[in-house]
Amino acid sequence: MRRMTARPANTHQAHLLRLLRDGGRSSRAELGERIQLSRSKLAVEIDRLLETGLVATDGFAASRGGRRSHSVRLAPGLRFLGVDIGATSIDVAVTNGELEVLGHLNDSTDVKDGPVAVFEQVLAMAEKLKESGLAEGFDGVGIGVPGPVRFPEGVPVAPPIMPGWDGFPVREALSQEFGCSVMVDNDVNLMGLGEQHAGVARSVADFLCVKIGTGIGCGIIVGGQVYRGVTGCAGDIGHIQVDPQGRLCACGNRGCLEAHFSGAALARDAEEAAHSGRSAHLAVRLEASGRLTSADLAAAAAAGDPVALDMARTGGERVGQVIAGLVSFFNPGMVVIGGGVTGLGHTLLASVRSQVYRRSLPLATGNLPIVLGELGGMAGVIGATRLISDHLFSPA
Amino acid sequence: MRRMTARPANTHQAHLLRLLRDGGRSSRAELGERIQLSRSKLAVEIDRLLETGLVATDGFAASRGGRRSHSVRLAPGLRFLGVDIGATSIDVAVTNGELEVLGHLNDSTDVKDGPVAVFEQVLAMAEKLKESGLAEGFDGVGIGVPGPVRFPEGVPVAPPIMPGWDGFPVREALSQEFGCSVMVDNDVNLMGLGEQHAGVARSVADFLCVKIGTGIGCGIIVGGQVYRGVTGCAGDIGHIQVDPQGRLCACGNRGCLEAHFSGAALARDAEEAAHSGRSAHLAVRLEASGRLTSADLAAAAAAGDPVALDMARTGGERVGQVIAGLVSFFNPGMVVIGGGVTGLGHTLLASVRSQVYRRSLPLATGNLPIVLGELGGMAGVIGATRLISDHLFSPA
Repeated sequence: MRRMTARPANTHQAHLLRLLRDGGRSSRAELGERIQLSRSKLAVEIDRLLETGLVATDGFAASRGGRRSHSVRLAPGLRFLGVDIGATSIDVAVTNGELEVLGHLNDSTDVKDGPVAVFEQVLAMAEKLKESGLAEGFDGVGIGVPGPVRFPEGVPVAPPIMPGWDGFPVREALSQEFGCSVMVDNDVNLMGLGEQHAGVARSVADFLCVKIGTGIGCGIIVGGQVYRGVTGCAGDIGHIQVDPQGRLCACGNRGCLEAHFSGAALARDAEEAAHSGRSAHLAVRLEASGRLTSADLAAAAAAGDPVALDMARTGGERVGQVIAGLVSFFNPGMVVIGGGVTGLGHTLLASVRSQVYRRSLPLATGNLPIVLGELGGMAGVIGATRLISDHLFSPA
Repeated sequence: MRRMTARPANTHQAHLLRLLRDGGRSSRAELGERIQLSRSKLAVEIDRLLETGLVATDGFAASRGGRRSHSVRLAPGLRFLGVDIGATSIDVAVTNGELEVLGHLNDSTDVKDGPVAVFEQVLAMAEKLKESGLAEGFDGVGIGVPGPVRFPEGVPVAPPIMPGWDGFPVREALSQEFGCSVMVDNDVNLMGLGEQHAGVARSVADFLCVKIGTGIGCGIIVGGQVYRGVTGCAGDIGHIQVDPQGRLCACGNRGCLEAHFSGAALARDAEEAAHSGRSAHLAVRLEASGRLTSADLAAAAAAGDPVALDMARTGGERVGQVIAGLVSFFNPGMVVIGGGVTGLGHTLLASVRSQVYRRSLPLATGNLPIVLGELGGMAGVIGATRLISDHLFSPA
């Protein structure tokens, strides 16, 4: 199949493409019920989309003796690539037009190596997916990076944990490499989009997605769209103060959330508990692997280690305190928690919930679900393909 | 003039009415530049609006020998009523269609007396404005109340400082009394709308408006519209925790912002400083009036009383700490501070700014103005007329 060169010519065509992406194969009658168009105008727009090759008639219906097919679907050869760059790992996935994951690769990396090295790795992973026969090429690529992005240009801006990336023209450089449209966003926004597209927030228009990994960030979805703020850095909640007398943070302030509860802070706390002999369980793990991560802490907590459980609980209270403030401020329809630290699971969730339900206005918490994400490590790549398909399925 | 009975028939007419509201008298050519319509379709829509009586030809142009006028304006007889109910006072203002204030009344009240007593007072004030010849009647009424509102129905929901108002059908009851459309919202949202319409936030689409009066609340404007949250209580920031070991709050939690800095908290602190002899200045004021308010504190601070200045400064740091978190989260284009406590002026502002600029991401604070509102006590009533005119200038 030739790669996607056409874009929808108007908002009706864009709407039709999104309906087919989200609902799959549909009859003309079904589409007609969901779009404000007369039957004849709908037929015109669908015919135009068929001409562009973005949409195909359903093979089955077309074979019934030459009668005009009443069902259409997105072109079966459409391929989107989703890339989720984390501080220490890369996820790459290829999807069809309906954003169903056809293949997925995960590799460890160090984002500190800078964009050139990291993108060499991304390109090699994308090549491997092509070689496996899942795609001949890509119609669009979405990319998430673990730091703030100037969204219209797709350029990281002073990302704290990404030295060497400041101002690097990610979108432009990768558009040339891939030969197709590329969109770049913050990894947390893409996690939010992913959970909305195919995860726990499917029917929710206004929600918060808190990602607790090496650092902490928050995706904000308003009216079904990512809210990015005026300079694209909305959701930077890692340095909200949880205790004026708290720990010194890497940012130079005292008592930031990230200094008390994040993948990095938990790893440090766990190693300290192992060294000091407070937790025999963690000491054994430290001896075995030489270092501890939040995954070790989660395993220790799951095994009933009281020190690990206490760390999960008190950490959850800190996050809960911040989320309580955000719930009071934003009055969301759902709070989704994702990222590596969610290995702490229900101990963490219980602590967060108790803080939010205790501290926020009853009117705000009455019907508020506070839940773990459903998609785990796939949320980011699915969100990335959602981002690029939203872009391509808009009038040019 | 007969009262407004027509509503715009389509989005083009609605857009034209808003352009005339916000820009005043305009030529057809000027309107044509600002709206996506062919010249002939524009003429049709304007003629229809002229027929409804919502729009009038400009008197001057019409007198030039019968040639068809090229200028139009909103009907000069349009009258909106804006009502801003506070915990202890009521503001009522009448405006023309362009939301220019023609007359304004202020009266003290006690919102705890309940809706029946308060609305008797509001109706008497509106009557007085009519008797002064400013209006024969009203085409629409906007009302702000100091508590959460279920917006579509215009009904207060469990408002903490408004006993007796829970579930009272404000919108319905006053529509009957006034015989016209009524819209009800939280007072802080209306302050935000007012500052956006005619105040300091005129050109800003995404901003926060923090009102520090008896309590503390925050209006959130996203894309030029009030963001209300899923149950209408977004912006309830008074109970965000500023210190886990802080003061006991009326809500039962510890260290809420409102327990440390609000009109009520400041009045209590000022009286304590007067009683304990720490501030001679405040003691003199207390003796003179029997009680102290945040206005006394502002006067003492303005006169250089060190105790009052210190209270303004430390209080400002508490508010600044919360605003810093909101700036990190929401990345707004501006922060507007309003309400009674703004009498503390630049001492307060300096404290807030130092916290925000120190604690939030540079990308978020780089071009962020943190300013006092421009409209003072008029922001709420102007916002109320903006609210009802937005409603009436929408397709029915």
